[in-house]
Order: sequence, then C-alpha cells, then structure tokens
Amino acid sequence: MRTKRQTTYEDFPLTLDGHGGLPEQLARALKRMILGGLLAAGAPLPPTRELARIQGVSRETVVVAYELLSAEQLVVARQGSGTHVLEGLSAAAPARSRATVRPPSRFAARARSFGPSSIAAQPHDLRYNLHYGTPAQQGDFYRSWRRKLSAAALQVGCGYPEVAGHAALREALCDYLARRRGVVASPGQVFIVGGTQQALTLLARTLLEEGDTVVLEDPSYELALRSLTVHGAQILTIPVDQQGLQVDQLPGRGPKLALVTPSHQFPSGVTMSLERRLALLAWARRAGAWIIEDDYDSEFRYHGSPIPALRSLDLHDRVIYVGSFSKTMFPSMRLGYVVCPEPLCEDFTFAKKYDDLGCPTIEQAALATFVRSRQFERHLGRQMRTLAERRGVLIEELRRLLPREILIEDTNAGMHLVVWFTRLSYADIDTLVIAAREKGLGIYPIHPSYTRRPPRPGLLMGFASLGPQQLRHSVLLLATCLRDLRSAGDQHLPARRESRAAGSPRSGRRRVN
Amino acid sequence: MRTKRQTTYEDFPLTLDGHGGLPEQLARALKRMILGGLLAAGAPLPPTRELARIQGVSRETVVVAYELLSAEQLVVARQGSGTHVLEGLSAAAPARSRATVRPPSRFAARARSFGPSSIAAQPHDLRYNLHYGTPAQQGDFYRSWRRKLSAAALQVGCGYPEVAGHAALREALCDYLARRRGVVASPGQVFIVGGTQQALTLLARTLLEEGDTVVLEDPSYELALRSLTVHGAQILTIPVDQQGLQVDQLPGRGPKLALVTPSHQFPSGVTMSLERRLALLAWARRAGAWIIEDDYDSEFRYHGSPIPALRSLDLHDRVIYVGSFSKTMFPSMRLGYVVCPEPLCEDFTFAKKYDDLGCPTIEQAALATFVRSRQFERHLGRQMRTLAERRGVLIEELRRLLPREILIEDTNAGMHLVVWFTRLSYADIDTLVIAAREKGLGIYPIHPSYTRRPPRPGLLMGFASLGPQQLRHSVLLLATCLRDLRSAGDQHLPARRESRAAGSPRSGRRRVN
Repeated sequence: MRTKRQTTYEDFPLTLDGHGGLPEQLARALKRMILGGLLAAGAPLPPTRELARIQGVSRETVVVAYELLSAEQLVVARQGSGTHVLEGLSAAAPARSRATVRPPSRFAARARSFGPSSIAAQPHDLRYNLHYGTPAQQGDFYRSWRRKLSAAALQVGCGYPEVAGHAALREALCDYLARRRGVVASPGQVFIVGGTQQALTLLARTLLEEGDTVVLEDPSYELALRSLTVHGAQILTIPVDQQGLQVDQLPGRGPKLALVTPSHQFPSGVTMSLERRLALLAWARRAGAWIIEDDYDSEFRYHGSPIPALRSLDLHDRVIYVGSFSKTMFPSMRLGYVVCPEPLCEDFTFAKKYDDLGCPTIEQAALATFVRSRQFERHLGRQMRTLAERRGVLIEELRRLLPREILIEDTNAGMHLVVWFTRLSYADIDTLVIAAREKGLGIYPIHPSYTRRPPRPGLLMGFASLGPQQLRHSVLLLATCLRDLRSAGDQHLPARRESRAAGSPRSGRRRVN
Repeated sequence: MRTKRQTTYEDFPLTLDGHGGLPEQLARALKRMILGGLLAAGAPLPPTRELARIQGVSRETVVVAYELLSAEQLVVARQGSGTHVLEGLSAAAPARSRATVRPPSRFAARARSFGPSSIAAQPHDLRYNLHYGTPAQQGDFYRSWRRKLSAAALQVGCGYPEVAGHAALREALCDYLARRRGVVASPGQVFIVGGTQQALTLLARTLLEEGDTVVLEDPSYELALRSLTVHGAQILTIPVDQQGLQVDQLPGRGPKLALVTPSHQFPSGVTMSLERRLALLAWARRAGAWIIEDDYDSEFRYHGSPIPALRSLDLHDRVIYVGSFSKTMFPSMRLGYVVCPEPLCEDFTFAKKYDDLGCPTIEQAALATFVRSRQFERHLGRQMRTLAERRGVLIEELRRLLPREILIEDTNAGMHLVVWFTRLSYADIDTLVIAAREKGLGIYPIHPSYTRRPPRPGLLMGFASLGPQQLRHSVLLLATCLRDLRSAGDQHLPARRESRAAGSPRSGRRRVN
C-alpha cells in the first residue's frame, strides 16, 4: 500500500511560486491542487517524510506547510492516519480565465473608446523633448523642497486629513489669489485637490448627469475632453478666435457647464478679451450654466501686467476657479486648488470626501509654509526669468534658421509656443514627426487639440524643461529634418508613409446646433 | 463743476478688502462699482488727486490702481479728460446670491441625504478618545519616516507619476502580499490608490451603473455604505454570524458586487470560515458578481497564524483585493493598494487616470524602500507588540471594573474591541455617551454600523492610540459614568434626555428578497 502511494506522489504537480519562505510556497502549491480538484475532499496528503524527500526539502518545511493549510481549515490532521483534505470541501475545477471581458460599465466602455493619451505615453529615448507640461525646475529647488517636506513631516498630525484641504494652505492661498489673481475668497471656498484632473472629475460628479452638455473651447486640452466624455458628458465645442471663445456661438439654453482657459487659451495662447469675458458671464447667468475657469499657466506672462482671473469679474457666482501646482512646482506633487461659489461648497466637499477623504497632509503643510512666506512667489519670479530666457532663445533660433518656413503665434504667456508651417501639408508633418523622433527630437503637432483641422499644420512647442543650448540644438535638428523632407520631396520619392504618430484631429464629437 | 463732483466722490462707496497692496485693493473696489453698475459705462473716474485725498492714500497709489483697471480694459485714460469707464460696457446689477441651490446632480442629492459621518467629525476637546481608526504610532517612527521622505524627494523624477503607481512600490507589494497574505499577483495587477476610500470609488466607477445592487455585510463600515449609495448603488445587506457573512442568504442573481471583510469583519471582528469563503466564491462565480475583499487590519492578529486572504482561494478571478497603509502607517498618508483580476486591470487604470492621473510620487518612493527592505514588516512587528499590550490592558481593566456589566466579544485581530452591555437599554447608552463626553471620554456605540439594532447596546472601542495608563483612566471614567447612570436610574429621575449623539441604526436601506 505504501509503495502504491509513493509512485503517485512522485508525479505530484507541485510548482512553487518563488515568493517568500519554502513552507508558504509549498502550502500554496498544495492549496492550488486542493482548490483545483486535483486533491479531492477527504483525500490524504502525502506523508510529510515522503513529500520532503520528493521535493528535496526538510521534513520540518513540510510539517509547517501542513500546519499552514490546517490553520486555513483546508486540511485536517487525523490522529494516526496523517493529514487529509477536509471532508465536504467542494472545490471547483478550471484555471483562471484571462479572456478580455465586456466593459463592466458604461464608464469603462467610454474610457476604452479612447486610445492612450499623450500625457501618459512619453517616449523615454529622446535627447530633446519639446513636449508641453514638464516645468523648468532646477536641482537646488528640489533640495530646498526636501527640507520643507522634512520639516512638515514632524509638524503635522498623523490622523485623517481635512477633507477640503489643510487649513493653513487654504488660508495662504486666499491671500495669494487675492493679491495675484484678483480672486477674493474665504478659506471655506478654497479646496485642495489632487491636481486639475481631479478638480474636473469632482466637478463633473458634483454638477453633471450622463448626457448633460458641456461646452469646451476648440482647440482644447485633450485630457479635459476625454475626462468629461468618460464621465458621460456630451461635448459641444465652440471655436476660439483672437478674442478667445466665440461667445455669440453659444446656444441660449442647454449646456450645464463650460470649461474655459481665459488667461491663456490652451493651446492657442489667446487671452480672452474683456468684452468676451463679460459676455460669457452674462450667458452663464442667462443659461443657468456653470463656468470652470482653468487658470493654468497664468503665473507666467512675458509682457504687460497679469490679467486678473475671470472669477474676479463674476458678481453672480457662476465661475468655479481651478489652479494647479503642477506647472509652478512639479507634476508628481499632484496638488491643485478649486475656488467654489458659495452654493456649491457643501456639494464639492462631499465629492472630495467620497473620492478619497482628502489629500495627503505632509506635502500640503510644506506647501502652506512655502506660499505663506512668499518663498513661492520668489520661486515663481526665478522660474519666470528662466522661462523668459528659454522662450527668447527658442523664438530667436526659429526665426534665424526657419525664417520663411514658419509663423510663430505671438502668445504672451505660459510654457509653450505655437508654430505654424507655411509650406507643409498634413502628410509632411507626419513624416517630419517621425524623422525628428529618429534623430532623438520629440515634436508634437497641434491639430489633435482641434475638432476641425486648422488650415495649416503646426506644432505645440514646450520649452520649459530644456536649457538654451538644448533648445538651439533642437531647432537645428528640426531645420535639418525640414531640409531632408524638402529634398526628398524634390526627388519625387514614392508616397510618403502615413503614420499615426502625428495623431489625427478629433472626429465626430462636435455637435451642430 | 469741480465742487459738484467733489461732493459726489466724498460718498464713493469704496470698501477695501484688505488683501495685498493698496493699489490692487483700490482697483478691485472700483471694479466692483463698475461691474455692479454704480459707475456706468463712459462715466469718469474721480481725478487721481481727489481720490487720493478722500481715501487717505498717495496719489501714486491711485495712479497705479487706474493703470491696473486700464490693463483689464475696464477703463480708458483719455488725453486731457481723465480716466473713464469703457464705453459699451454692459455690467449687471445685483450682489452675489448666497441662496442654497437645489442639488446640482443626483450624486449631490444623495450625498446631501446623509448627515456628517463619524470619521470627519471628531471632537477635539477629549482627554481620551476611544475612536477606532487612529493607529499607534510613536514619535521615533515619524522621525525615521521623515528621513525616508527626504531621501526619496531627491531620487524621484518630477514629471507626471505613473497612473497605476510607482513601479518600485508595486513590485515591493507583490513580494509582501505573496509572503504575508498568500496573494500572488504580478506588478501589473497591483495599483496604488489614495486609500481604501478611493479604491471603493474607483471600483464603483469601473463596475457599477446607477441602480445596480451591491451586497454589504450587516454590520458594516458606515463610509463604505455611504460611498456606494452616493455612487448610485442599491445596497442589499446580508447578516453576519459567527462564521461571517451568511452566504446562503445571498440571492442567486442580481448583485453585481459584494464588499466583504473576511479576515476581520468590521466591526464585529468575526473571521469568515473557510466553508463560507468557498461558498462565497462559488456564489460569485454563479451570479457573475465581483467581490471586493477589504483586508483591513489583517496585519494585526493576536493568536494563531494569520489566515491568508480570500483572494488566495480565488481560482476564478472574481476577487478584487484592497489594502491600506492608513492603519499600518498613518491615515494622513492617503495611500492604499488594489490587486485587480487581470480582466479588470485596463479599466481600473482608466478609472485612476481620469480620477487624478496617479498618486504623488515622493511618498510612494519612500514607502517602496520601506517595504522592500522589510523595515515595514519590522515596523508591523513593533506595532503588533504595542497593540497587544494595549488590548491586554483594556480587556483586563474592563473585566476588573465592569465584571457583570459587559460582555467582551472575543475578536482576535485589529485595533478595536466590541463590548456589549448586559443591563443597559438603548436610551441608557445615549445618556452614557453624553455623560462620558462631558468627562472628556469619547466612546462610540456600535449600532450605527447595523441595519437592524442588535438585541443589546454595545460600544466599538478603539485602543490603538492610547497608552496603558490612558486606557486605565478611560475604563475608570467609563465605570464612573455607568455608576452615575445606575444611581440616577435608582432615584427615578424624570425622563432621560434623548440625543442624537449616540446615533441611530440605519433605516430603510435593507431590501427584502
């Protein structure tokens, strides 16, 4: 009898997973057999000595493994007759299914319908990346920030955070926003959130049902369009001209919300005129709509004094003001702020609470000290000088090396330029992006930000994270790629390869009134 | 003519708001007048000298204020005739409305329907707070954590975080979870989230439509019930007995999701039996339902070896495993983790991305080092010894001072005890909570966690954040309050005051099948 069993055990399909101690691995392997039905209810486990020999482990290891299974009530040790799988244990058969399932919700279905977005998929093998979004921070800034973080870690409590945000940070922001952006608010109206993205999500939750219409500028920020669509909103895009959003094209009724970037339209760079601002506020009041003002990059203006926020003109409490520390500090910090009209404060608190109970406290406390002491504003001043220099170098080099090839959009703020190509087709720009990437240069077409393709192709050139010399090299590489493209065209080469690398403009999302 | 104007300007209703420099304050005050219609389109502003005199400020201040308004295009300076409000400016009239608005969405309406939850509303004037949820951290832990944070701040990039979580932390967790919880997962299945609360929200987004049915244990965690309800779920509560969830009471079809706490049922403390675990998994498979396993407090068991997670028995990929660092580290850190079945990984990534683009990087990196080096497990060991001592003291003192008054539920894990009063009515417990609070002792009834009131009143006593001496004093205070209550009862005092302080059990949420 003993010998019969022994042969069976030699074939025991025990595969150890390599995690943790041997007894645990052995126990898990046996468990998989039991639950997989390979060891039936009531069946005996191999004698410990036997299994130790077969597996080449100590008997102690097997004993502990059996004890672990026993503690889980999967096996019982019977006096005199060894260890058996529990009687009555009804285990199921097959292995894990890895088939792709149908979208489990409409949210998931909408999210799946978009491809990967540009913010997530950054190539890492580029020498020079002219992507928009990475700020111009220096090493000494991080060393100083580290000290602040370290100091804050000792000062703040370890308990649950305040849902609406760390009180000291909200107070410091009130003072900052009143002085720098003309936004007068009480700390009770200021909320700390995990960046602009979370602000949008929480506002969508607070304000929108599936199917509600939301107005976006055309062009606009890709991720904003996606977030609101994924939430279930119907997007209505309204074109932007040199005065900003064409407010007269807004429908009188219908939209529940409009998302705008009045200080520095993304990505065109236009500042919304006062006339349009007042018209937009009047529209919101008539239509009973809310306005989200994304005041991104407003801290960085190159000439003229900063224009106060739209919110500062809002006497009827329709404007929700959103700002972020991603550009002024760094994106991995994941902190931003929302100034809510009084009637929305309670609802927005609920949205934040049920989302994550509040942002982590230590970084908020460090930031509070930084803003309150005005070190933040001195930091902005330093950043501003760095950005102005880089912007100047980029414009100068583009004008010098590509004088007749491009038109530079005269935007006055932020961390990127818009450059239009006067002589290229959309097929050319696809080829150019690929050629540049092969030379280690990351360039990004602007047309994916538009619902309808602009008349000529262009690039959105972020300059914040590259030094002057790197920017000079970048423009030189770009000029080389353009020259290669021209000479290839002159030689009447066979059809250029089309590619998805350059993206295509959004399709089918614009509704006509 | 000059004198006529002068008298007008003396009455100028300029109220400065006290934020920032005087010119900015003056500009904002004038803007409010213009936008409020008190200074009509085309109307002249007071001469600078005049306004300076009236306001008692320098003329330079007024000049700068006018320049600010001019930069905003609200006024124009006309050569020779002073500064005027812009022609054609159509400003609106009344002041901000502060009326409470209707709920702007069904989400907001559902959120408003709940009162404040106990996690948010902690009284600060208590000497001893037996609230559940604050962990037992010591000062030296924070000093050590601060160094880790400081080191991580220099090592990690400043760019956008990985949406699913910092890679090093996900890898370290895979190893930890396999060894300690029997959960074998690849790093691609592990997601870092902003705590259990965010895990629930993101899973609700991924899996549920409004109106879908979700199973909760009865009793259960108040905030979980609220979060899912606010998301739009219909809650079906199923009672828990000494074996855990009464799986045989689950309907065969209908629920899309069940949220359970198998290692340590909250708040009853029961460990789900193996039989029930297997039955629950079989049910999920038959019903096509997902299971969320909230493995809270599983790290702290007082005798016997830890029971592996439900997820470790799940051969059919129905279990989503959720863990948190709120109790093992500290709640203000706001970090937790989710192990997703393979088929849900992509959808869950979208939910996290559209929620906040990912958690802050620095704390994740610090935590990765802590977990990988197993300092985290040594830290758990130290915490465990502290908790065991505190738990022992609390049980001993309760038995010593209240031998016939209470029954202590024999739970074997976690950071709280459940104590039932053998001789008190529900009216008594209300009085007791108020009396205790007046003496500086925070105690918390357990019945708000139940759909149906348990036969006798009880308390949920958190002991983690109080030292042995504090726990002794707390029990002494409790005994005093009980004695006072008894003697008041003996004197047949007029009707005891009822109060909401003790809360009432949930009503009307349970559906009958």
